[in-house]
Amino acid sequence: MAKLAEIAKRVGGVVADGAGDIEVFRVASVARAATGALVFAEDERAVGAAMKSQASAVIVPVGAVVAGKPVIQVKQPRLAFALAARMLDGRAPAETTTLERGDENAFAIADSALVSNLAVLGEGVRIGERSVVAAGCVVGAHVVIGEECVIHPRVTIYPGVVLGNRCVVHGGAVLGADGFGFVRDGETGEYVQFPQQGTLVIEDDVEIGANTTIDRGALDETRIGRGTKLDNLVHVGHNVRVGKNVVIAAQVGISGSSVIGDGAVIAGQVGIGDHAEVGDGVILGGQAGVLNHKKVRGPGMLFWGTPARPVREYLKELAAVARLGKK
Amino acid sequence: MAKLAEIAKRVGGVVADGAGDIEVFRVASVARAATGALVFAEDERAVGAAMKSQASAVIVPVGAVVAGKPVIQVKQPRLAFALAARMLDGRAPAETTTLERGDENAFAIADSALVSNLAVLGEGVRIGERSVVAAGCVVGAHVVIGEECVIHPRVTIYPGVVLGNRCVVHGGAVLGADGFGFVRDGETGEYVQFPQQGTLVIEDDVEIGANTTIDRGALDETRIGRGTKLDNLVHVGHNVRVGKNVVIAAQVGISGSSVIGDGAVIAGQVGIGDHAEVGDGVILGGQAGVLNHKKVRGPGMLFWGTPARPVREYLKELAAVARLGKK
Amino acid sequence: MAKLAEIAKRVGGVVADGAGDIEVFRVASVARAATGALVFAEDERAVGAAMKSQASAVIVPVGAVVAGKPVIQVKQPRLAFALAARMLDGRAPAETTTLERGDENAFAIADSALVSNLAVLGEGVRIGERSVVAAGCVVGAHVVIGEECVIHPRVTIYPGVVLGNRCVVHGGAVLGADGFGFVRDGETGEYVQFPQQGTLVIEDDVEIGANTTIDRGALDETRIGRGTKLDNLVHVGHNVRVGKNVVIAAQVGISGSSVIGDGAVIAGQVGIGDHAEVGDGVILGGQAGVLNHKKVRGPGMLFWGTPARPVREYLKELAAVARLGKK
Repeated sequence: MAKLAEIAKRVGGVVADGAGDIEVFRVASVARAATGALVFAEDERAVGAAMKSQASAVIVPVGAVVAGKPVIQVKQPRLAFALAARMLDGRAPAETTTLERGDENAFAIADSALVSNLAVLGEGVRIGERSVVAAGCVVGAHVVIGEECVIHPRVTIYPGVVLGNRCVVHGGAVLGADGFGFVRDGETGEYVQFPQQGTLVIEDDVEIGANTTIDRGALDETRIGRGTKLDNLVHVGHNVRVGKNVVIAAQVGISGSSVIGDGAVIAGQVGIGDHAEVGDGVILGGQAGVLNHKKVRGPGMLFWGTPARPVREYLKELAAVARLGKK
Repeated sequence: MAKLAEIAKRVGGVVADGAGDIEVFRVASVARAATGALVFAEDERAVGAAMKSQASAVIVPVGAVVAGKPVIQVKQPRLAFALAARMLDGRAPAETTTLERGDENAFAIADSALVSNLAVLGEGVRIGERSVVAAGCVVGAHVVIGEECVIHPRVTIYPGVVLGNRCVVHGGAVLGADGFGFVRDGETGEYVQFPQQGTLVIEDDVEIGANTTIDRGALDETRIGRGTKLDNLVHVGHNVRVGKNVVIAAQVGISGSSVIGDGAVIAGQVGIGDHAEVGDGVILGGQAGVLNHKKVRGPGMLFWGTPARPVREYLKELAAVARLGKK
Repeated sequence: MAKLAEIAKRVGGVVADGAGDIEVFRVASVARAATGALVFAEDERAVGAAMKSQASAVIVPVGAVVAGKPVIQVKQPRLAFALAARMLDGRAPAETTTLERGDENAFAIADSALVSNLAVLGEGVRIGERSVVAAGCVVGAHVVIGEECVIHPRVTIYPGVVLGNRCVVHGGAVLGADGFGFVRDGETGEYVQFPQQGTLVIEDDVEIGANTTIDRGALDETRIGRGTKLDNLVHVGHNVRVGKNVVIAAQVGISGSSVIGDGAVIAGQVGIGDHAEVGDGVILGGQAGVLNHKKVRGPGMLFWGTPARPVREYLKELAAVARLGKK
């Protein structure tokens, strides 16, 4: 909890007369902001949306035309938001990770579940019937693991992650680590972490390969849909939404905030930029690259190359280039 | 163990009169099937091969012309085989992973081996003279580690994997996890795991980098040949055979059932599709891609690009495209 | 410690009369060699540099013209150096890794630091004020962790690695494993490890993503500059120097001995060859490839494609190829 005046002081901003005593409790995205939340907006459109949200206050650019909510005006709103998030995050660093095995009375482990006594469970972990948690796993506080899951050795699950039923997670996977989001301070050139306080939800029947990493959401959630299968060494960034029955082969990388539709098939080493969209049933050939903010759509359509294009088009280009090379 | 009639019922198939009482004990590949095994065939050629195998029964497509062995006829033979594999796999999920440190009397650890008491060893593990297993490792039941191996901290070795002598495995590597093989149910769009019951054999003098993953075979084995060196974050899929004295740089991915010949050199981030072949002594340039089922051959030959082509050809194409871009 | 005559015998080389009794104590790079060090040189220029160094002896090619220092003449100097390094490395394999939790009296952990009793610390580890080391970590002997660091669960830090203040390391990362350096014996085709005895230094305010791997130097050090942020599943090879305030997205691979300048921004899945240079402030687009020994320079300049070229050039090429494909 902090007063707007305190935040303004910390972030080098200005708060209107009378608004300085207003208190905010947490940062949030505009879409999910509730009373007590602080949000930010970087341009006119975003300011408009923020004003219509449930947030209690908004960080806006100097000179923004605003009405309806208390604001802090700053030069670099995103940076100020990141700094404010740190002030409002009352947790000590040790609370964001797992140090000790919790008090066994604070677990809720189903009678038929098998949990290795060589696994580490944080406080408040819940594990469903017939699930297995193998040796060497570290399961953070308040993680929920559904029924009939198999968590193989040496999996790390960060606090608050939720897994559905019948999930399989292979050795070395890391679920729910901080997303990769930083704000560059335009004046110093240094990077400040954008808050990574969201969560990760894995739906039923998902399988996750060895050493795969799936990050938690920044402010909201990352979600892997029911029946989806991920191979080894896959990376899924923060806020990504992967649909149902998607197949993701080894070493694929999906950047933050992208959306993968139901039934998509993504071959090995494909890279997907941030805020991209892969439509339902789309097939991406090996090593293809989908650019930031790009959409590829069409059930059953195969895209290939970087930037990813329809495969017929791409094959024609390859053939033309081959002819050219022979001249 | 199950009767063909029980399996047919489970997979929605039909078994000929009189054959319903025949019992099978396990699934197998056609190549390695022995008496008691159930195999599957998806087309006429595969049916022919299956009929000549030692298998006791075959799952075939509806309407297949068959003679010589009891069969189950189904619409989706591969899916039925995957479902049958589950029925025949008598292991509980907990038996496929490592929950506890085994009874020390059930180990066979050489007197001169050094095994951390902070490592977890399953039942029946064997470790040879002068080998070292560091803290935080989880070594599954019946794993064999040869002489003079160094297994660095936090390596996971799944049950049944075999390592030769003088192998070095770096931190975080995962050896023998399930391969990435699923069968799509054409009717529901859902994926069912194809059995991943094979094993992984690492021959002598192999070195494996940090956080590298090598999957076990589906029905047969994955094998890494003598003297081969793998860098960090490499992925090797199920049933892959890597030859001797091969060098595989960081972040290379090799998909299922591919074959890499002796003395090949594979640069960083190369992707190799499934059922591909990289011949003896072939060199693959960084980020090259070898397509599914493709063969690249020629000792000392350098291939580059995706799809991988002889480097002279590829360089000519790059030069031609550069000229074109300048017009 | 070994006499040159002993080394010559082991590596199949020849040492001049009278020099056989000279003793060397360790291998070193020419740049950092001090008295007692053995170095190697493969060509005339390298021989000249080695002769000017502080090294006590040099392994040189047969027939090299040398003056000023005792030498061992061999057919394959790099191979001989690798074999000599093994002789001179007095450590048993178990000393290069972490087997047990050290004696608590041999730690130096700040009073305000929080170290999980489920983490493993080797002898002589030092941890600064307010730092956190989570459950499941393995921290090798003589590692130094600065103040206010957060080391999340299941991180592996090899012996001797140094981290600055306020570093964050996410689950599964492996810091300081052996680099990937091998010398091929031209006669047998087998690979012998080039010594990987250097170290790894992580400066202040660095963040390292889940399952990322950063190797120690071969003879010297690998270094990650202040304020740099690495995403998940990144690979950094031996001897790499990454500058300050660099952003490296997921699944990037940086091969040995490359240099990344301050403020560079490297998008996902970029591959950088060995001995390459990415200049200050350079931006590399997703999946770009910088070739071995190549330099890309220009603050704010965006490079893309493989081989990486200025983005305007590359976009023109893409457009030209697209037109060609439509003909």
